[in-house]
Amino acid sequence: MDVLAVCLNPALDREFVIDNFSLDKLNVVPNEKNIMTPGGKGVNVAVILSKYGIKTVTVGFLGGHIGNVLLAELRKTSPLISTSFLRISSETRENIAIADTVNHTLTEINSEGPTVSEEDIKNFMKRYEVLVQKVKTVVISGSIPKGVPNSIYGELTKIAKKYHKTVFWEARDEIISESIKIAFPDVLKYDMRRSEKILGKFLSSEQEYIQAAKDFIKQGANLVILSYKTIYDFVATADGVWKFAPNVEINHSYLLGSGDNFVAAMVYAQLNGKCCIDMARYGYAAGVAKASYMGKEPPSLKQIEEYLGNITIERVE
Amino acid sequence: MDVLAVCLNPALDREFVIDNFSLDKLNVVPNEKNIMTPGGKGVNVAVILSKYGIKTVTVGFLGGHIGNVLLAELRKTSPLISTSFLRISSETRENIAIADTVNHTLTEINSEGPTVSEEDIKNFMKRYEVLVQKVKTVVISGSIPKGVPNSIYGELTKIAKKYHKTVFWEARDEIISESIKIAFPDVLKYDMRRSEKILGKFLSSEQEYIQAAKDFIKQGANLVILSYKTIYDFVATADGVWKFAPNVEINHSYLLGSGDNFVAAMVYAQLNGKCCIDMARYGYAAGVAKASYMGKEPPSLKQIEEYLGNITIERVE
Repeated sequence: MDVLAVCLNPALDREFVIDNFSLDKLNVVPNEKNIMTPGGKGVNVAVILSKYGIKTVTVGFLGGHIGNVLLAELRKTSPLISTSFLRISSETRENIAIADTVNHTLTEINSEGPTVSEEDIKNFMKRYEVLVQKVKTVVISGSIPKGVPNSIYGELTKIAKKYHKTVFWEARDEIISESIKIAFPDVLKYDMRRSEKILGKFLSSEQEYIQAAKDFIKQGANLVILSYKTIYDFVATADGVWKFAPNVEINHSYLLGSGDNFVAAMVYAQLNGKCCIDMARYGYAAGVAKASYMGKEPPSLKQIEEYLGNITIERVE
Repeated sequence: MDVLAVCLNPALDREFVIDNFSLDKLNVVPNEKNIMTPGGKGVNVAVILSKYGIKTVTVGFLGGHIGNVLLAELRKTSPLISTSFLRISSETRENIAIADTVNHTLTEINSEGPTVSEEDIKNFMKRYEVLVQKVKTVVISGSIPKGVPNSIYGELTKIAKKYHKTVFWEARDEIISESIKIAFPDVLKYDMRRSEKILGKFLSSEQEYIQAAKDFIKQGANLVILSYKTIYDFVATADGVWKFAPNVEINHSYLLGSGDNFVAAMVYAQLNGKCCIDMARYGYAAGVAKASYMGKEPPSLKQIEEYLGNITIERVE
């Protein structure tokens, strides 16, 4: 096994295409426009890595009917993905997206998601500590269910560090803020899709982003990626700070999932001997490549290599 | 086993309560307002009968993830329900109803439902013929999936009649019209919720309803129930025709499921030695009782007995 993918709050992603979707009416979804896929950021990373030939074991909390469907769909995806989810009593998240291609609306219906007990967390930590010893790299990505403290990324990283594993995070500010009090990951990527806050503050100037990235490095991260105005990134290592920009037009509506592609490509690069800024270049190229077309399918390794030439990296510190 | 409940096209019924449900937005369903129940008319009848202490075996076509969820939920409902669904490769129906209690809308999203192959139908008929010999009564109720001919109610009834079983139908006109060419059930109840047609024609006068009911009796049914203006019924036996009316105010929004309660109560009455018009009285009382409150829960036997005094039966022929 190469990678342990931690997805604490997986989701069953459902997509219905219903043209002229209307309130207070009976709407019918054609069978071919009724799609279920396993989701949650950690799961997405495992799925993308499987396309690059990398074996992962995916862990997290899973429960109920929706959990069963997610597991069956995930197992169908690739023989390179194995799973060791802890079973919980409440229902896994279900995210329904209803796309109307006539009126250009996207109506989403998300379930609240499960609540995890202290007992569940204890059992999960035990299982995690057994599995973490078997892999090279740990990726922890995405939201956490109710009942789980925001500091869990830190706790998981502390255990991984006991066994000298490389750890990647992609998460929102609340999780990062609490978790870095316990341990720093090697690679820290901010998920800023819903909030632009960093350590509880809205940053505005490029200088503030650069300073924040440097601070994370000073405190213990080896590579920090802060997205800036959606399509740019500030990337910091112990050697300096760079601003990444695309050389190509980015269609914002194609950005879906590009964060997961960024992380998966960095993990691929790391497992193939790349380090530091070169890892980030590979990840950024994957994100830009992904944004060049519609759909969830990750870019191929060949496409990522091509897109390495479509990005500009400017040293800013 | 007392009853074989045939539900050819079962459905997983899902109800979300989302206040201020909006298009083109992210809507969240609270966990306690996110309900899944086994559905389809034949399944509903089996569930109601289980509340009256009657054992059923439920059969039909079931497939995919939704089929698995439905089966797990149905098995949880009552130990009196056993299942022997034929597994098919396509997904069972899923009916999502989104109730907004602020704006008073009900938005429905139904899947198209599965397609059944000829091979599946053959295998189903074999299984049905084995099971039908073990019961006293057969109830066939509800829609049929794609690939299944409208005449299947007739084919199933012909087999049941070989073993001298009592057969109940509740179905729409397309099914009844085609199926009575093959065999007549003992009890024929029209489902007129979506179309008021009888044998392809819209009837209007009471006299036309009475004539239609008499014709079905002449051709082979023992008891015929034709609903009239939603809350009334014309009921025919070999002895005559009656018009059933409620003595109480009917709240139309509470009528949901009253047809299934009508059928289940008739089956209960038959198994308890009632015949003909007395069976229909019991069924009608159950339907009226059900319409006196909100929710899916069937009326108790005690409530049905009480409502026998809340209906008026007038001989019209």
